[in-house]
Amino acid sequence: MSLPAAFHDIAKRVNNWGRWGADDEIGTLNLITDEVVARAATEVRTGRRVPLALPLRQDGVQTGLIPGRVNPLHSMVQINQEIFGPGTVACSDDTVTMGLQAATHWDALTHVSHSGRLYNGRPAGTITPHGGAEFSGIDKARHVVSRGVLLDVARALGRDRLDGSHAVTPEDLEAAEELAGTRVRTGDIVLVRTGQVQVYLAGDREAYGYPSPGLSVRTPEWFHAREVAAVANDTLTFEIFPPEVEDLWLPVHALHLVEMGMLQGQNWNLEKLSTACGEEGRYAFLLSAMPEPFVGATGTPVAPVAIL
Amino acid sequence: MSLPAAFHDIAKRVNNWGRWGADDEIGTLNLITDEVVARAATEVRTGRRVPLALPLRQDGVQTGLIPGRVNPLHSMVQINQEIFGPGTVACSDDTVTMGLQAATHWDALTHVSHSGRLYNGRPAGTITPHGGAEFSGIDKARHVVSRGVLLDVARALGRDRLDGSHAVTPEDLEAAEELAGTRVRTGDIVLVRTGQVQVYLAGDREAYGYPSPGLSVRTPEWFHAREVAAVANDTLTFEIFPPEVEDLWLPVHALHLVEMGMLQGQNWNLEKLSTACGEEGRYAFLLSAMPEPFVGATGTPVAPVAIL
Amino acid sequence: MSLPAAFHDIAKRVNNWGRWGADDEIGTLNLITDEVVARAATEVRTGRRVPLALPLRQDGVQTGLIPGRVNPLHSMVQINQEIFGPGTVACSDDTVTMGLQAATHWDALTHVSHSGRLYNGRPAGTITPHGGAEFSGIDKARHVVSRGVLLDVARALGRDRLDGSHAVTPEDLEAAEELAGTRVRTGDIVLVRTGQVQVYLAGDREAYGYPSPGLSVRTPEWFHAREVAAVANDTLTFEIFPPEVEDLWLPVHALHLVEMGMLQGQNWNLEKLSTACGEEGRYAFLLSAMPEPFVGATGTPVAPVAIL
Amino acid sequence: MSLPAAFHDIAKRVNNWGRWGADDEIGTLNLITDEVVARAATEVRTGRRVPLALPLRQDGVQTGLIPGRVNPLHSMVQINQEIFGPGTVACSDDTVTMGLQAATHWDALTHVSHSGRLYNGRPAGTITPHGGAEFSGIDKARHVVSRGVLLDVARALGRDRLDGSHAVTPEDLEAAEELAGTRVRTGDIVLVRTGQVQVYLAGDREAYGYPSPGLSVRTPEWFHAREVAAVANDTLTFEIFPPEVEDLWLPVHALHLVEMGMLQGQNWNLEKLSTACGEEGRYAFLLSAMPEPFVGATGTPVAPVAIL
Repeated sequence: MSLPAAFHDIAKRVNNWGRWGADDEIGTLNLITDEVVARAATEVRTGRRVPLALPLRQDGVQTGLIPGRVNPLHSMVQINQEIFGPGTVACSDDTVTMGLQAATHWDALTHVSHSGRLYNGRPAGTITPHGGAEFSGIDKARHVVSRGVLLDVARALGRDRLDGSHAVTPEDLEAAEELAGTRVRTGDIVLVRTGQVQVYLAGDREAYGYPSPGLSVRTPEWFHAREVAAVANDTLTFEIFPPEVEDLWLPVHALHLVEMGMLQGQNWNLEKLSTACGEEGRYAFLLSAMPEPFVGATGTPVAPVAIL
Repeated sequence: MSLPAAFHDIAKRVNNWGRWGADDEIGTLNLITDEVVARAATEVRTGRRVPLALPLRQDGVQTGLIPGRVNPLHSMVQINQEIFGPGTVACSDDTVTMGLQAATHWDALTHVSHSGRLYNGRPAGTITPHGGAEFSGIDKARHVVSRGVLLDVARALGRDRLDGSHAVTPEDLEAAEELAGTRVRTGDIVLVRTGQVQVYLAGDREAYGYPSPGLSVRTPEWFHAREVAAVANDTLTFEIFPPEVEDLWLPVHALHLVEMGMLQGQNWNLEKLSTACGEEGRYAFLLSAMPEPFVGATGTPVAPVAIL
Repeated sequence: MSLPAAFHDIAKRVNNWGRWGADDEIGTLNLITDEVVARAATEVRTGRRVPLALPLRQDGVQTGLIPGRVNPLHSMVQINQEIFGPGTVACSDDTVTMGLQAATHWDALTHVSHSGRLYNGRPAGTITPHGGAEFSGIDKARHVVSRGVLLDVARALGRDRLDGSHAVTPEDLEAAEELAGTRVRTGDIVLVRTGQVQVYLAGDREAYGYPSPGLSVRTPEWFHAREVAAVANDTLTFEIFPPEVEDLWLPVHALHLVEMGMLQGQNWNLEKLSTACGEEGRYAFLLSAMPEPFVGATGTPVAPVAIL
Repeated sequence: MSLPAAFHDIAKRVNNWGRWGADDEIGTLNLITDEVVARAATEVRTGRRVPLALPLRQDGVQTGLIPGRVNPLHSMVQINQEIFGPGTVACSDDTVTMGLQAATHWDALTHVSHSGRLYNGRPAGTITPHGGAEFSGIDKARHVVSRGVLLDVARALGRDRLDGSHAVTPEDLEAAEELAGTRVRTGDIVLVRTGQVQVYLAGDREAYGYPSPGLSVRTPEWFHAREVAAVANDTLTFEIFPPEVEDLWLPVHALHLVEMGMLQGQNWNLEKLSTACGEEGRYAFLLSAMPEPFVGATGTPVAPVAIL
């Protein structure tokens, strides 16, 4: 079994291998130049900040479906410990164990491979238990700051949230772009709102995960044409799940991460951002979404903030 | 044994309990208003970004000296796993176990207590193994974005790095402020550079930790007067270690976190920022340093970025 | 609210505080003398060994109901790594994160407290995040080897497994003792079979946990009278759950661990042992059930073996 | 580079592939028959029990030398938590993160491979991040109970402990066997005492690890001839380290685990056992050393007990 011709056709059209040199490890993040960032900063008007991460806790979005992707287990190793003697200043310390893709996160470019290859044509075998990803580990994505644009598809389509069977199309993105009143351009980070995270926020972890609305296999070409630097949304699976084409699993992952070399993010809470953008009547902002630099990791928790 | 009168005198002068109401859990972060942030964004000129986190890895800054504060243990739980069958898109996943204060981090206000009290007068006993900090957990510090000012004390004093016995004084801060060419003001996040992190970067973890230059017990009053929102530096201990006053351990921690309710950060790599600020001839920038929202945690890894 | 008089009445009758001195930390394990062990070894006839631990895996018996009690997360940190150079002997290494009470385990005497007290009258506050249990940590139970007796209640009552509402009574234990053909005596470790673990083995983790048959609040007096050293069974909750008396939660835990100072074990797989004992027509054997000596821990995974 | 001819010569002489069938996953544990165990039980005379595990704690034997092999990090997730309401029975729970080979442990047969092969000729690639070892995971070694024989080489040679440069030879083993007054026979588990663990017990973790006395590359043939079932000792490296033959690293590991399919154990504390055997004048006993059944794991902590 291998991936269908339809997939390979799209792959060819969006492929960025070699575009930034044979040694490149960061893909479309190259599109975020200093100029892009300087211009992005001018989007800040009111200084209103909206954090986009879900709380990190044991009852997070994971349900055990994905092996090894464990919710954060937080534990105290010191509580008010007077380490220098009775009556001295007392310290509390804690630790965590978690799956790096368990909560609000970025996938590293190495999070998926297909046909034995990773981004920029590197062999899949360059990921090993000893050190993780030799190339394109999340630590290589040193800074992720740019203009953010909220494409509020749910609002643009007049829904609270999209149905589980709704594959977000380029046409949907353009409807949301029109609502946003700005054109997505080179180096932007696009946030696609489906409203699906409401299901988790309402307490139903099972239903949040599956079935889920998400990006259609047709969207990577749109992101490619617009020269987007990264994309995130408010679902567990990122792309429509179960998939549009029978037995073609995770094609959007493969196109974004492997072919385009474009970071993608999941489980972002875009509800308050939607409210804020609606209130302010603008959908562009400065976005800071810094990866924690886990060496060789294939993902990372992230605490993004939109600065309006 | 209890804390000396000299400590309590300072404590009285910098105390912020009740200043933002009896229910407040974030202390000086209240000083970062929307207006402060909007103005901070105007500091962005060139769009140059400097990340300030050390890589997260097993050979991080911890040496075993602080019980339970373990360096990040990263491990792969899936490598190129074709979860949907042979020939399908393959996934890699990983997990981490780490001390929340192990690497580049923010201390939550609850990281220390003294005399049985936490920030805003809450009992130390409100931190429990079940859920961690009931108040002022790091998840309460929802967004940490403001103007950042690098006070490059090492450079201002004409040194590569300060000696292990150098307690950074208010006079040192003002010398660095003069070099910076800007006055520290309400809501700023101040980064104090000692150069000590060079010792770690050169491979000597033991010598990095101790003895270490760091903030003098005289500096909290200066930060208080200037209405600083948060302070971070490039050492393991933050304050001079061993301490200036015999048997008065961690007084700066207690003044900042408990009395003032001011976030403090450690193990920030300020070397490249120092270079960038020197090159650009300016030491103020937009700083994004978002805490990962671990519920009830007393600290968090952070991946700060300075945007010049 | 406090525990009812009925509880305190039983507590008084089974209390062992001071019985082995004010400094004692191991309770009824004192009953396992060298003589008891020497005699227990004579129970070995055929040399047949039956292991009693459930496999340690991510899909273990925990369902997320008990906060922080996480199933084992096993991950490889090295796979066939030629650490001394190409062509040399290659090593594989792995790590685990798990709740110490997550799988087949012993509760330490400190696993529960009531009315502010632990076994031997020690204050509950002697358990701290820094170091765990100062007294009666599981590491103090240095060796747990004795005669084991299977009280196969399900078989004695002619059932495959007991109903979820079945509280195992002293009369049930005596029926099983009669089936066993041996009298429970000083220093024995008693294994009580309900058959409930079949539910987990059949794949239903939710139903395994609750409702569950288990020991009645009347059994501690029976174990006390017989001078039993430790008790384990094949359920998640050990005692009947929900409890016999409304709002009297975990009374058997409190009587065994706090009052008697008697180790108790849960999630033991007694199915194959039942088969073996049935086939051999005897229900006594040498049992080795060594705690892993986690310092200060309130529980431990255990891999018990019955040697017939 | 590949392993030298001298290694392959020995490998040929001790190889057990196919000896217990092509499907076998447990190697020399097959030698422990019911009869062997029944006879082993007759070694119990006084009932004295000697536990052989080092305490599991943060300051265990690991120093950071072996990547990912972390000492146990124990933390409390509940302390005296009244989960059913105020005044009810209160629970304490804890978790651990640790390297499976970090402390007193068994290596699984899959802990090493050489020339691309594992025990019984299986491909090294049958160990994957997803599930670990497909064959010969430590969970397959279901029960490890047999006659134990202490070969107290240090005592036999009249030393407190062997020098770091001492490779234990077959002649040394026979000297210790003579002291023991019993002949090692089919199915025995042999414990070889060098005394090296004293260095760790005295607090010097660095010196404990390296240089270290340990088994000579000549010993596997001796164990093979005697049909030993498993071997453990009181060192970190098991075999002499640095090795006897330059650039021939870990040959004993490869011979025992890959060629013979024989479990080996490290970091066993044999000091008190040496005392006990000396006092009782006998060096054979019943040994229970049950692996914790981590599914697919390449090692496991073990809490062995010698029953004299």
